[in-house]
Amino acid sequence: MTHHKFTPSTWYQTIGAHPAALTIRDGDTVTVATLDANGYDVNNDLKAADPNPMSGPFFIEGAEPGDALAIDIQKITMTRRMGWTRQGLAWHVVDPHEVRGMPPREKIFWDINPQQNAITLQKPPPALKNWSVPIVPMIGCFGVAPDGGEAISTATSGRHGGNMDYRGFGENVTAYFPVAVPGALFFLGDVHGAQGDGEIAGTGIETSAEITFTVRLVKNKQLGWPRGENETSIFTVGNARPLDQALQHATTEMLAWLAQDYGLDKVAASHVLGMNVRYDVANVFNPAYSVACRVEKSALAALK
Amino acid sequence: MTHHKFTPSTWYQTIGAHPAALTIRDGDTVTVATLDANGYDVNNDLKAADPNPMSGPFFIEGAEPGDALAIDIQKITMTRRMGWTRQGLAWHVVDPHEVRGMPPREKIFWDINPQQNAITLQKPPPALKNWSVPIVPMIGCFGVAPDGGEAISTATSGRHGGNMDYRGFGENVTAYFPVAVPGALFFLGDVHGAQGDGEIAGTGIETSAEITFTVRLVKNKQLGWPRGENETSIFTVGNARPLDQALQHATTEMLAWLAQDYGLDKVAASHVLGMNVRYDVANVFNPAYSVACRVEKSALAALK
Amino acid sequence: MTHHKFTPSTWYQTIGAHPAALTIRDGDTVTVATLDANGYDVNNDLKAADPNPMSGPFFIEGAEPGDALAIDIQKITMTRRMGWTRQGLAWHVVDPHEVRGMPPREKIFWDINPQQNAITLQKPPPALKNWSVPIVPMIGCFGVAPDGGEAISTATSGRHGGNMDYRGFGENVTAYFPVAVPGALFFLGDVHGAQGDGEIAGTGIETSAEITFTVRLVKNKQLGWPRGENETSIFTVGNARPLDQALQHATTEMLAWLAQDYGLDKVAASHVLGMNVRYDVANVFNPAYSVACRVEKSALAALK
Amino acid sequence: MTHHKFTPSTWYQTIGAHPAALTIRDGDTVTVATLDANGYDVNNDLKAADPNPMSGPFFIEGAEPGDALAIDIQKITMTRRMGWTRQGLAWHVVDPHEVRGMPPREKIFWDINPQQNAITLQKPPPALKNWSVPIVPMIGCFGVAPDGGEAISTATSGRHGGNMDYRGFGENVTAYFPVAVPGALFFLGDVHGAQGDGEIAGTGIETSAEITFTVRLVKNKQLGWPRGENETSIFTVGNARPLDQALQHATTEMLAWLAQDYGLDKVAASHVLGMNVRYDVANVFNPAYSVACRVEKSALAALK
Repeated sequence: MTHHKFTPSTWYQTIGAHPAALTIRDGDTVTVATLDANGYDVNNDLKAADPNPMSGPFFIEGAEPGDALAIDIQKITMTRRMGWTRQGLAWHVVDPHEVRGMPPREKIFWDINPQQNAITLQKPPPALKNWSVPIVPMIGCFGVAPDGGEAISTATSGRHGGNMDYRGFGENVTAYFPVAVPGALFFLGDVHGAQGDGEIAGTGIETSAEITFTVRLVKNKQLGWPRGENETSIFTVGNARPLDQALQHATTEMLAWLAQDYGLDKVAASHVLGMNVRYDVANVFNPAYSVACRVEKSALAALK
Repeated sequence: MTHHKFTPSTWYQTIGAHPAALTIRDGDTVTVATLDANGYDVNNDLKAADPNPMSGPFFIEGAEPGDALAIDIQKITMTRRMGWTRQGLAWHVVDPHEVRGMPPREKIFWDINPQQNAITLQKPPPALKNWSVPIVPMIGCFGVAPDGGEAISTATSGRHGGNMDYRGFGENVTAYFPVAVPGALFFLGDVHGAQGDGEIAGTGIETSAEITFTVRLVKNKQLGWPRGENETSIFTVGNARPLDQALQHATTEMLAWLAQDYGLDKVAASHVLGMNVRYDVANVFNPAYSVACRVEKSALAALK
Repeated sequence: MTHHKFTPSTWYQTIGAHPAALTIRDGDTVTVATLDANGYDVNNDLKAADPNPMSGPFFIEGAEPGDALAIDIQKITMTRRMGWTRQGLAWHVVDPHEVRGMPPREKIFWDINPQQNAITLQKPPPALKNWSVPIVPMIGCFGVAPDGGEAISTATSGRHGGNMDYRGFGENVTAYFPVAVPGALFFLGDVHGAQGDGEIAGTGIETSAEITFTVRLVKNKQLGWPRGENETSIFTVGNARPLDQALQHATTEMLAWLAQDYGLDKVAASHVLGMNVRYDVANVFNPAYSVACRVEKSALAALK
Repeated sequence: MTHHKFTPSTWYQTIGAHPAALTIRDGDTVTVATLDANGYDVNNDLKAADPNPMSGPFFIEGAEPGDALAIDIQKITMTRRMGWTRQGLAWHVVDPHEVRGMPPREKIFWDINPQQNAITLQKPPPALKNWSVPIVPMIGCFGVAPDGGEAISTATSGRHGGNMDYRGFGENVTAYFPVAVPGALFFLGDVHGAQGDGEIAGTGIETSAEITFTVRLVKNKQLGWPRGENETSIFTVGNARPLDQALQHATTEMLAWLAQDYGLDKVAASHVLGMNVRYDVANVFNPAYSVACRVEKSALAALK
């Protein structure tokens, strides 16, 4: 159980079978710096090209296809006082006839104030003079190398994870990924200081960060899509366009989970989900959208 | 401010400019019985054809196109001990290759126990023996007559409201509809004793009920889509397929609301929504899907 | 076998169970004038409100739910020299980031020249000085009253037909509709002098016209969606959003047709369609899109 | 102008910046063998893993990002007498409630008879005893290495081309791809002996083949998406899900083409496309669907 402090010198814009940056073991903890979505570091120096340059990959000893890789997200620390977004909503989250009236998508700068736990606009319009956003950090893009030799752009997502931009992937959450290549090859980056559902402005509060996570290997655990768990919920994430298909993937994966770990056949699972399921629109901006299918643990408490 | 106790003798399977069942005034309260989605009443007697037979319409004196009709949902009472669902999930909420393994969509019966605030399966599978669902009643289908002479099936929804099947339309919620014909002509029915997001089993706990609501007329208040408000949130509801388009409608309507009542232009609104918006997948089952775009009032508190 | 010359004095903006304008018999022929999409007649006088005011309905004696109504489109005559379109493409047929650069959707006027079989812009931009379009007339909106008491806007379409805007519904084509109410109640209008696939400019060449059609009643012929037939092809039309769902409906209806009339089970039909199917994007503009699933008769010739 | 006869010994399941198999020049012609979609060669020996193993890549001297690569498809020869498909239609091209009644997706074998120009089922069901399909060969999957270091699975498609499965990419067609890396790195394979629109059975007639093509380099020609040209038409291909988005991409690319080479601004282009555009549903099966936006050259003849 080593705690590695790792300083990346190479970053990747694809998630694929790139050379391992560090080899670690089941149970190890890593603290690693991440660049912002455009490749700027803690000093706002450009270190890598966009989109979403990844730190890693981390090779986990013993990880084999057919295993699940658990990532306990322990800590996400803001390392820069400046974060940025783009003004205006993404063209495709409003009615097409509204697009012509939307403002140009200029870059907007924010101050991140960890002491007050607040993020504020550097140049607020009058209506937002007293308005701020609490810091609720999340990992925008992380995942494991896909199989078949693919190297998938960090602009998008898939079964391997990737740019899901889900606010549910924050501190004290465990993310699970399906291992597809030996060593899993785990990448991460693109931290947001805060973000609403859907990433509908096309960004969260984009900034540099430091992440501390612990890896656990779950042998012989077949996953179809990324999963997650926090104190109160379990959830699955489907990544595809349109939203309908992302929701289908997430629901299908939840059925698999309820069968694997809760002993529910499809009839029983349909009763539980029909009354209890929650869907989160994680992102409706990237090439693949992401939908989380979530169930409160309290709704599952009486099952066993 | 009259409190009407109204007993329907006619029900409608379309929302349109049907003859008024009762004429009421701005500020009046109505208590009215509703049939279940298949047309069965409190005694489980068949009183009307499906789908979703509506009680009403109520003609609101003074309501004109260009006004908004506010419906304060005060009380939804279960009037029957039996509710029903269908087993299995809807074919189109799982991956297509999963459909062949889904169970047949048989009708399932539940006991509604108001004293214990619990709904239980009459014949639970072993895994669900100790499992129950709390009663959280909601109105599945309600709305006002559309313009243009349309009579829209209660199977679906649109700008006029209709079969939105949103669990957010429960007690202590105010729903707002765009008045499109003189008198508004308000219909309601299809109460669910409980339901998860998306109505993914194709039903909530379908049952007969009694609803008490108060109407308020908001003159010269242009709405594009239904809206709602509870103690902690404001929300808009977009109705369309696919989910992407329902989300576009809901987001566009929220931009309109933030401009009308909160003085936010599109730049300011994009900052607030980008960090705070929540989307609820209301239903992903009906011919038109419904997505709610929601903002916590706490996120708007600093605006004025 | 009467040939009725019918002059409408009332027009409808919904397709529903409106009072019959004329009662006709199986085998009868009707010649009827139609207004343009905005309600203007042969003299460019406004006679009815938009969208797509319908001539009819025609009550066909003996038509019952479960029958099919065949409409042989014999002749579509342009009755006005002026037709109109809107400039620019519909916002939702180009990438969202292109919408801001699209021209405003102004009304554009064209000359219809039956002698030269050509339609020309009244004020062509320089690049289009010598450019013209041949007259290939089609019926934009037609169909039969739906069941369940619905009155469906002529802006959209469904199982009953409606605003499908398919260029395949021209002269010498037979259209089939599923009869849903006694007498079928057939409506028609919204003729286009020419149109490409998808109605991507939001219009065809919109104009007034005169249509001659013969009705035939096919007893006990269950249709799920509109169908059509010309000298060389059979086709089915699915109406829904998104295009994916319209295509599913059309394909499903073609499977039904191949089973009913060609004796093909699903395996055999999959071989034939897999190698021969053609899809036409009829419209990708209206609230419901329309996709035609088409098979050349030559590909079916060896089946019997 | 060399004519290379190239025999591959390595195949790729991703399209990416792999080592060049052969370096060729602008104007050169190549004849190359291709494996079937599952990796079987002319002798039905397994030579590479699926999906769609690619021959190549060919490095074109002088090709630079910002150029277009033109591929003149001169000849596609069937090299095997056996082709295969799968029975039944893809689950997602029929209504969800039809999926349960579809046959299992078993592999079906066909005889390819170049002399009779016919493809026949080895074990036809009775209704198809006399039925056959003419040989109309096409390239299912081809394209150039994408930028950004991506290696994209040959199961799917994108701006770089890939698994578009468009029956329009046959003999005597020129395909154009946007060069994204030095040398372009062109891959090809997955020939179909015949196929309908949409690849709705999930396959064409899958077989081994020999392709002869000539490369031409078009310097400084920005393409956003693949394009094509035959004797009578020009077309663009958009690749995405859902069909709506694929159609948006293809239409946007056609607007660019009409501006670049035909001098049409958006108003003029909207007139021409509104009256003349044709859409082909190339595939509605793969992870990304493909839609072709096509215009007959005759409709453009009067423009210059």
